[in-house]
Amino acid sequence: MKGIIFVIDGMGDRPMKELGDKTPLESANTPSMDKMVTEGITGIMDTIRPGVRPGSDTAHLTLLGYDPYEVYTGRGPFEAAGVDLDVEPGDIAFRCNFATADDDLTITDRRAGRINSRTDEIADTINQMKIDDNVEIIFKESDAHRGVLVLRGEGLSDKITDADPKHEGNKPKIVKPLDDSDEAKYTADVVNQFVNKSYEMLKDHPVNIERIENGEHPANIVLPRGVGAVPQITPFEEKYGLKGACVAETGLIQGIAKLAGMDIIHVPGATGGINTDIDSVHKHIIDTVKSDKYDFILVNVDGADEAGHDGDTIGKRDFIEKIDPIMKDLDAMDDIVLFVTADHSTPVSIMDHSGDPVPVFLKAPGLRVDDVTEYGERAAAKGGLCRIRGSDVIYIIRDLMNEMPKFGA
Amino acid sequence: MKGIIFVIDGMGDRPMKELGDKTPLESANTPSMDKMVTEGITGIMDTIRPGVRPGSDTAHLTLLGYDPYEVYTGRGPFEAAGVDLDVEPGDIAFRCNFATADDDLTITDRRAGRINSRTDEIADTINQMKIDDNVEIIFKESDAHRGVLVLRGEGLSDKITDADPKHEGNKPKIVKPLDDSDEAKYTADVVNQFVNKSYEMLKDHPVNIERIENGEHPANIVLPRGVGAVPQITPFEEKYGLKGACVAETGLIQGIAKLAGMDIIHVPGATGGINTDIDSVHKHIIDTVKSDKYDFILVNVDGADEAGHDGDTIGKRDFIEKIDPIMKDLDAMDDIVLFVTADHSTPVSIMDHSGDPVPVFLKAPGLRVDDVTEYGERAAAKGGLCRIRGSDVIYIIRDLMNEMPKFGA
Repeated sequence: MKGIIFVIDGMGDRPMKELGDKTPLESANTPSMDKMVTEGITGIMDTIRPGVRPGSDTAHLTLLGYDPYEVYTGRGPFEAAGVDLDVEPGDIAFRCNFATADDDLTITDRRAGRINSRTDEIADTINQMKIDDNVEIIFKESDAHRGVLVLRGEGLSDKITDADPKHEGNKPKIVKPLDDSDEAKYTADVVNQFVNKSYEMLKDHPVNIERIENGEHPANIVLPRGVGAVPQITPFEEKYGLKGACVAETGLIQGIAKLAGMDIIHVPGATGGINTDIDSVHKHIIDTVKSDKYDFILVNVDGADEAGHDGDTIGKRDFIEKIDPIMKDLDAMDDIVLFVTADHSTPVSIMDHSGDPVPVFLKAPGLRVDDVTEYGERAAAKGGLCRIRGSDVIYIIRDLMNEMPKFGA
Repeated sequence: MKGIIFVIDGMGDRPMKELGDKTPLESANTPSMDKMVTEGITGIMDTIRPGVRPGSDTAHLTLLGYDPYEVYTGRGPFEAAGVDLDVEPGDIAFRCNFATADDDLTITDRRAGRINSRTDEIADTINQMKIDDNVEIIFKESDAHRGVLVLRGEGLSDKITDADPKHEGNKPKIVKPLDDSDEAKYTADVVNQFVNKSYEMLKDHPVNIERIENGEHPANIVLPRGVGAVPQITPFEEKYGLKGACVAETGLIQGIAKLAGMDIIHVPGATGGINTDIDSVHKHIIDTVKSDKYDFILVNVDGADEAGHDGDTIGKRDFIEKIDPIMKDLDAMDDIVLFVTADHSTPVSIMDHSGDPVPVFLKAPGLRVDDVTEYGERAAAKGGLCRIRGSDVIYIIRDLMNEMPKFGA
């Protein structure tokens, strides 16, 4: 038996007038998922707890059986792991933007003209930065204008503010300690020096000289944010005895899976948006599930969340419809325990995550099939799973896989 | 957006033969609440956890987001705050009865002839009591035969028994320490001295001499019970960033709201019973909800609980019907998130609180409206909220108010 958690990121929503008081999922034409719901068992789920608005990171950690209140201090560590930096527990990690600053460090473009080439050369330069002997500076470019920064050493803390001013026309924010510890004061000082030195090292960088010559904004400063301390995470396989893989589109989800010790399946053409190469995503999901190498697969497709953030009702509905053929192939498989869910709701009307519960269904042998016949938020609330929590999922799946130890005699 | 928790105290009940196997709520004619349920989302709620019989105090603390297992040691502190005594964390507080004792301290009337005047003069005398230099005696009369006692000083404990013998014909109970600490032994001794001294100071009090002349029972002894240590409670506004007010009928609920730092709206004519001035209650609720001063309002109406305790089936049903017009006015308002509930069930057949879950409904913009069309215990169990906990409520409301921070990214 194989276990699969299939996350349709941000799928949960609220009824919308333009869809005849239906949600995008209720409105979507999803014959395969409806058939699986009819033959399976459904319910609603609070990923963290009722009313709590999960991030995708805290939600996925919870679904994999980790307590986000223990292991989550910020997004940085997961982004860093997602670009294949070998982070270590205790490292302080940040998401960064390459940005454009003028001479007095006023930020004129937070995305450096959405630079999308030669950021590896800029990263090489940053990696030569020295601040003092106590701290190692590790930097890696990510996609487009994004990168990650890791500080490694003794006496560091993640209890500090961000440097990113969020809006153009401002200078980088002075990073401040959030508590009275020497570690926080020292780390804030290191990050402030990092920001200033990044400008000194990058302002005349050959890549930027060429960009300026071409009329493009130079990537002449680095702005860290999303600070977090890399947590000690018990590997998934050690925790559950299941060899895991992750098929996901975004570095954030890949980073979570990587920190949990899972193999990452890279999907060419995956964008994390509604324009993703869905055929490539489809193929890699099915190939991974069919592979003999894995007992457990975490799947994440991201387009519905992106459409929710963008306020794109029809795009969200249509993207959900694009998932349905993948489900058809999974429906044809025996010997799988498949848990289909969202990680959180991203209502189009809110354009952000909400605390609304998400609709879930299970496909597995031996289920107590209920009488729900379509996949939707309100239909699922009548299902046989009633209302569960995200932290229950890994237990339910392992039980249906016959992998749960008996508690007692 | 404003948040409202509207508690119909003790409303939950069980099916009764005399109501054609309906509960008082199911039997009540509540067209406005039925309409709101039809247009909203319903469910059942275990205020503390399934099967746990909540007091009104622990239930309300939970609904406001406080853990009663942390902050609740007894009723005294909330009663004391409810009569506007400025209690401080660490104070030991008691509810008290003025009672009638004869010469050998046998209690002949636990309520001193239900005395209802000049108890302030008696309280003035009690406030002059000195036991020793370590402890300050603070006393205040409440309504009718009730009062509150606060002990303030170092080395006090709430781990002691009650003095109230509960039944006439007995002497006050000797208060005993509940653990081996010096603090508990000392505090028990102080309370025993307090009871004896109260008789010495009150037996010839002018108010009592006049009562005896008038053939009334004198209030010549004070019986403390419901001991608790005043907890450190993070103010509601500090916790949630919402300025709160409380419209309630009883000192207990007012005291909880006061300790949470909320403004107390006094309602002339409110009795806490089925005979309350419902028009005054109605007006003060609506005025408070409409006031620009508040983001959050806790409402409590108490008659259904009283009728439950009194075994008054028809009184309970009729009182629930009296609430319906208040709901009609709330239904007409936009931009509110209204959570209607009981704090616990008080089945008429039990004449006390039970652990049965309570029926709840939500009115708010953007809800996933379910297909329940009437407000009742069993109809609510089929609703789209399924089964939630009291501790979820403040999260759900804040999420619907768009006041919840995101946990993660």
